[in-house]
Amino acid sequence: MEHLNEKTLSTESVYEGKIIDLEIQEVELPNGNKSKREIIRHPGAVAIIAITPENKLLFVRQFRKALDKIIVEIPAGKLEKDEDPKKCAERELLEETGYECENLEYLTSFYTSPGFADELIHLFYTDSLKECREQQPDEDEFLDVMEVTLEEALELVNDQQIHDAKTAYAVQYEQLKRKMENHA
Amino acid sequence: MEHLNEKTLSTESVYEGKIIDLEIQEVELPNGNKSKREIIRHPGAVAIIAITPENKLLFVRQFRKALDKIIVEIPAGKLEKDEDPKKCAERELLEETGYECENLEYLTSFYTSPGFADELIHLFYTDSLKECREQQPDEDEFLDVMEVTLEEALELVNDQQIHDAKTAYAVQYEQLKRKMENHA
Repeated sequence: MEHLNEKTLSTESVYEGKIIDLEIQEVELPNGNKSKREIIRHPGAVAIIAITPENKLLFVRQFRKALDKIIVEIPAGKLEKDEDPKKCAERELLEETGYECENLEYLTSFYTSPGFADELIHLFYTDSLKECREQQPDEDEFLDVMEVTLEEALELVNDQQIHDAKTAYAVQYEQLKRKMENHA
Repeated sequence: MEHLNEKTLSTESVYEGKIIDLEIQEVELPNGNKSKREIIRHPGAVAIIAITPENKLLFVRQFRKALDKIIVEIPAGKLEKDEDPKKCAERELLEETGYECENLEYLTSFYTSPGFADELIHLFYTDSLKECREQQPDEDEFLDVMEVTLEEALELVNDQQIHDAKTAYAVQYEQLKRKMENHA
């Protein structure tokens, strides 16, 4: 499939930030022409589909400055340098929600915006939660924990309060899982 | 829920590009402390879950410079300035795959990376495809069209060739849809 490849001719670093870097690459297209690609480098992240003993989904409500509004998401967070994704998922779950879990199952990984960013999210699943202490988010992070039924989650999707890709995926995942269990 | 809000103190434009802009905002956190937010502005995009008359999913295989590899995605593209999302979806479907459709149903919209970007994807569904001409992608866009069964799509997810959020969502959407139809 080499007829699709783009060759890097040069890379210019425009910005190196706290969370993201921006670089501009000049590339040679498959037809020999040149073009520019704007690329965001991101450390990657984890997200957790967490089901409580009452069979509810665990969400966090959080203000997102990029959107200038509050949205509802599954617990998630950025990878520290060289951090194992599973360890990161356990850490973020505890920090954001105050829950630990006995088993954390790896589900899948996906890029969030492959057109311009290399952010990769690793998705985990747990239904063995143990509440153990107050949430302890990062010093610049403020969030409310929510526990909602699947039906309530589907309403939040319809109301556009659940409004991001990983959480829409998570609700659908749980919907499909229960559907398959019911018909097993 | 004002206890979660962040107030903008200042905004600095770092980069204005072809597709994305980068700005740094100084914000006041809910506890009165200050922090910085790195924010990517993006025009928004559409993506289409398209089912062929043979009940196959329509994908495009494309080299993504941000990842330096080829991945498989549902047809998608950026909104032009002031473009209606549905018109954009019809345009992108035709340009990328050579298909037109009679009915295009709006499904949902989600942010791809609310932690640092305002990119919003509008997702559409069609199973009324009419092949009408050769694909005509943008001048800097090279892609292969693929038509795969749902079972093949699930294998592509497992092989990490389907490796982005909107496409993972699309495969799961179709899986859930067929499951519900089978048990209706």
